[in-house]
Amino acid sequence: MENSYSKSVMLSPDGGSVVILDQTLLPNEIKYLELKTEYEVWEAISSLRVRGAPAIGIVSAFGIYVLTKDMTYDFFDEFKRIKKYLSTSRPTAINLSWALERMERCLDDNKDEDIGSIKEKLRIEAEAIRMEDEETCRLIGEYALSLLKPGMGILTHCNAGRLATAGDGTALSPIYLGNSRGYSFRVYAGETRPLLQGARLTVWELMQGSVDVTLICDSAASSLMKKGSVDAVIVGCDRVAMNGDTANKTGTSALAILAAAYDIPFYVCCPTSTLDPDAETGADITIEERDGKEIYEQWFKAPMAPEGVKTYNPAFDITDSKYITAIITEKGIIYPPYD
Amino acid sequence: MENSYSKSVMLSPDGGSVVILDQTLLPNEIKYLELKTEYEVWEAISSLRVRGAPAIGIVSAFGIYVLTKDMTYDFFDEFKRIKKYLSTSRPTAINLSWALERMERCLDDNKDEDIGSIKEKLRIEAEAIRMEDEETCRLIGEYALSLLKPGMGILTHCNAGRLATAGDGTALSPIYLGNSRGYSFRVYAGETRPLLQGARLTVWELMQGSVDVTLICDSAASSLMKKGSVDAVIVGCDRVAMNGDTANKTGTSALAILAAAYDIPFYVCCPTSTLDPDAETGADITIEERDGKEIYEQWFKAPMAPEGVKTYNPAFDITDSKYITAIITEKGIIYPPYD
Repeated sequence: MENSYSKSVMLSPDGGSVVILDQTLLPNEIKYLELKTEYEVWEAISSLRVRGAPAIGIVSAFGIYVLTKDMTYDFFDEFKRIKKYLSTSRPTAINLSWALERMERCLDDNKDEDIGSIKEKLRIEAEAIRMEDEETCRLIGEYALSLLKPGMGILTHCNAGRLATAGDGTALSPIYLGNSRGYSFRVYAGETRPLLQGARLTVWELMQGSVDVTLICDSAASSLMKKGSVDAVIVGCDRVAMNGDTANKTGTSALAILAAAYDIPFYVCCPTSTLDPDAETGADITIEERDGKEIYEQWFKAPMAPEGVKTYNPAFDITDSKYITAIITEKGIIYPPYD
Repeated sequence: MENSYSKSVMLSPDGGSVVILDQTLLPNEIKYLELKTEYEVWEAISSLRVRGAPAIGIVSAFGIYVLTKDMTYDFFDEFKRIKKYLSTSRPTAINLSWALERMERCLDDNKDEDIGSIKEKLRIEAEAIRMEDEETCRLIGEYALSLLKPGMGILTHCNAGRLATAGDGTALSPIYLGNSRGYSFRVYAGETRPLLQGARLTVWELMQGSVDVTLICDSAASSLMKKGSVDAVIVGCDRVAMNGDTANKTGTSALAILAAAYDIPFYVCCPTSTLDPDAETGADITIEERDGKEIYEQWFKAPMAPEGVKTYNPAFDITDSKYITAIITEKGIIYPPYD
């Protein structure tokens, strides 16, 4: 870790707030927010001030600790109400509910202790989720790096790096790790319309980390592959079904199909907490549809399309497992068949 | 034709200027420009105030007429110098050089006549190029429509419509024609990053034409296809090689590969003037690379990525012929093998 900025998600020293780097302002402004109320935590996740499946899990864990730590009256009921509320902030990344479930299990396992002790265990559990994620990132980096060679060109989509996790990221972890060992990767970042996580976040954090990164429009991936610049596609993900179907930022499935067509390996990096035993296939994964304004209005000086235009704006899509060369977890590399 | 705006390219009544609708200002402003100088014509093409392969050809034909019509001294040499100059305004669309060659042939064929008569013939030739394009669009529409069924969902990319031609467009021609016969197509327009011709131009002109159109980010095409909304992909093109490889706006090749993966037909519409007998395959087609600022700066209130970011910004890409179901011209439908 050689972040020149501090962590993207932290617990304040007094435990009174969740501190996040507001990712909606990057790369133009580096601003930390202190989240202290239920709505602030919910809104920070919902409006993508903090995003990235692992980071969302960590914020929700810190959040439920912060929001309940001073409660005396109705502590158990309030905990469950807040857990339910926070879990509605975004539907697709499973890490959100996974982290909240884990916090609830910690509560249930210690329910007979005194309330001060329970709260301390919740704080430790939330910190454990954060620390384990950092280690998970490191291990994913090692496994993924074993599939790569020095000097490779790597295309990634959205942001699955330091901003999305407590460590060096999932998809970007092998890049930081490899470069620290002299691999000198060339990285290509798809801008990731409509919210530009690739352009605004991935390019920013890779440049901070002195990685050679080139920004492309998402639509240029095919010609980039055709001209031989891409040796591997590496992405993170938000949920993996039992047959290997993977939900990740819209555009990911296109990259997988293109990679197959150009005979380029396509790797998905994620912690095992992203595997969803309740989803048999991608069809069982809820896909978030977001406001069409994200396409034609937000970020822009003038409307990009006429008033009243209709939009189709899913925030994620499903990558069929047949296009995924391997799934890399902190437990090892999984190859097809996945089911 | 039921344009509620006038043509996108015209000769002024006195023949003293080429009048174009400035497409860089759409959809927020409808402004016509009178092009009177060599640089104005060159710049209008180069900076995409007028774009679309057929429209570029028409502007260059009108342009060379306007720029030489009052010349007496060195008329022939000046004509050839200006022809050479205008042909450098953009490299990929073949229609530009095709129209200029045709104007020069008209000059050469009539070189023994008096100069007034030659100039009149040049005016008639330029008008003929425009009128023939209008008819070409109509015929492409008829042929393409024979492949479509009422109620189909059609995905298109960039703008190959009224704004790009003298008629109803190439890719969009069957849509206008079908809808005039009650076909009620659902059209999906990829926004076409970085210059947003889909969002700004296609959505605008289709809404003006009362067509049901939905804007998507280019990266959402895969999920749109997966959910069954797309029955056909129809695009225009800028140059077709002899083996059927086709140059069109960046992102087109991705749509072709995706369409093949989802078993959706992928149609290219173009006039025969777009076929290039000198290009054996797509490798023989020059691909324009444009300023990276188009990705991270232009159109935006703030930079979208950190200062100094590197970019890869081709304006077009090559669609391998194996992904093209048919090529539709005003002469009929061509199926593979193309060579």
